[in-house]
Amino acid sequence: MNARVLLPWTDIEVPEGLGAAYYDGVEPPPAGLDDVEFYVLPYDRGPEPPKLIGELPSLRVVQSLSAGVETLVPLLSEGVLLANGRGLHDLSVAEHALALIHAAQRDLPRWFAQQARGAWVREHTRSLADSRVLLVGHGSIGQAIERQLVAAEAVVTRVASRARPDEDVHGVAELPSLLPEADIVVLVLPDTPATRGLLDAKALAALPDDALVVNVGRGTAIDTDALLAETRTGRLRAGLDVVDPEPLPADHPLWTVPGVVITPHIAGGSASFYPRAKKLAAEQLKRYARGEELLNLVTG
Amino acid sequence: MNARVLLPWTDIEVPEGLGAAYYDGVEPPPAGLDDVEFYVLPYDRGPEPPKLIGELPSLRVVQSLSAGVETLVPLLSEGVLLANGRGLHDLSVAEHALALIHAAQRDLPRWFAQQARGAWVREHTRSLADSRVLLVGHGSIGQAIERQLVAAEAVVTRVASRARPDEDVHGVAELPSLLPEADIVVLVLPDTPATRGLLDAKALAALPDDALVVNVGRGTAIDTDALLAETRTGRLRAGLDVVDPEPLPADHPLWTVPGVVITPHIAGGSASFYPRAKKLAAEQLKRYARGEELLNLVTG
Repeated sequence: MNARVLLPWTDIEVPEGLGAAYYDGVEPPPAGLDDVEFYVLPYDRGPEPPKLIGELPSLRVVQSLSAGVETLVPLLSEGVLLANGRGLHDLSVAEHALALIHAAQRDLPRWFAQQARGAWVREHTRSLADSRVLLVGHGSIGQAIERQLVAAEAVVTRVASRARPDEDVHGVAELPSLLPEADIVVLVLPDTPATRGLLDAKALAALPDDALVVNVGRGTAIDTDALLAETRTGRLRAGLDVVDPEPLPADHPLWTVPGVVITPHIAGGSASFYPRAKKLAAEQLKRYARGEELLNLVTG
Repeated sequence: MNARVLLPWTDIEVPEGLGAAYYDGVEPPPAGLDDVEFYVLPYDRGPEPPKLIGELPSLRVVQSLSAGVETLVPLLSEGVLLANGRGLHDLSVAEHALALIHAAQRDLPRWFAQQARGAWVREHTRSLADSRVLLVGHGSIGQAIERQLVAAEAVVTRVASRARPDEDVHGVAELPSLLPEADIVVLVLPDTPATRGLLDAKALAALPDDALVVNVGRGTAIDTDALLAETRTGRLRAGLDVVDPEPLPADHPLWTVPGVVITPHIAGGSASFYPRAKKLAAEQLKRYARGEELLNLVTG
């Protein structure tokens, strides 16, 4: 039987009658994929897995494991369905946002540097508890971040692209009046024309001294040069999993600014993602085999 | 009017008629303390503030800002009341426990090292979400940690000195059967004969490979040599704010074990502590002035 589904893992259940081939995005794809109707893209493996979309003549469904699939849409032939990985990364990204916040507030780079030289020197630190956090982006990841911030007894103000007064969510248009009251601003925004450069020089200048800027959405939401200027003087601090550009060039001055913590866009790719991704893929295959509507459809 | 209260801060309200003197634990204490009845000890300032207890002839109340006051009890003359700082540090300690967990699970030392050399190299990490956490110590700090772990969607098992089946709290006697199922074990225990050496070589050996040991209680709860042996081989990992001995000597081998993160007993002393401490002290003074019962009394 020729494979009708192409999967990145061998350890998920495939409904009877479909037949599976496997492609992890690291080794080259196997031969004999002409009957593949359902392709689960390997996650976070660079440009090769998406390229394969155009080479599968029987393709009917592409299941991405990312939340953002804007780069895949142009690759789809007419009639091919696209489902995204909405929700799979929520907790991974949310906990990484918390990791960046804690790293900055509790001075972790300082302690690690002391540890390297065996120095036991004690100083009090900032805290997250009682901090005023402006959470910009209130989709499923933002909501997961909020739950963790609230449990830590931070004081959260919600902001999203559009105001939703019934849910106590402010619109981004209100940022100028909200930024001056924020000890910490957390960005969880997709890359859209509306979000690009949202935190520009003027917005950053509106933040109080010593405020912390955290970004786990897309790097383009912040004007990197403006952030560099405000962090270099020590007026602002930052915890960034995403930057603009990515990868950040090795000689970029942002790398070495004290008070700036950078991780290389790894918020979404932690261990808790895989069980959730496999569960989604298995459910989608079951639905596909039964002719039921798929979850997380982006195009239709 | 001679001072009847001795305070570490000048910015809290003192009830009319009491009169205050100030001692921050850094500068020497002022003269003229013979009428001091109520002494709020400066927090975390070494051995000098407790010594002063014996030099105040009119003393009636000692207010400590620490949760653990076992070293103060022998210093008190008969009839002097002692109140502790129970609750003031809960959130600070709890969020530091989360900081240590995130640092270990999300590989922060690795990213900071990469940042120092401008390297954008991506790898997936462990996560906290879906991890099985054994939380040993279920007082107010343990409960604050639990709320944050639950918000991060970790799976928490509660352990305390004594089992409390109605609250789903296991007793420490059950540790041998609980340790093998833990991805992360968090210790929040006071230093008592019963807690000393609780995680000895045998207990540590019961943890699964790659488990993370976090300690924000007292260092004596872990056999340091046994932990060193298990982390040196890479079998276990650790995130420690407290160690035995403290300070950890500069040449102690634990400092440089990969997979071990150490902070110098700073969990309790973060910014969120001070407003809460001042609020407690002001409330206690008000109660004292009115002849009402004090909060947080340890002896009576």
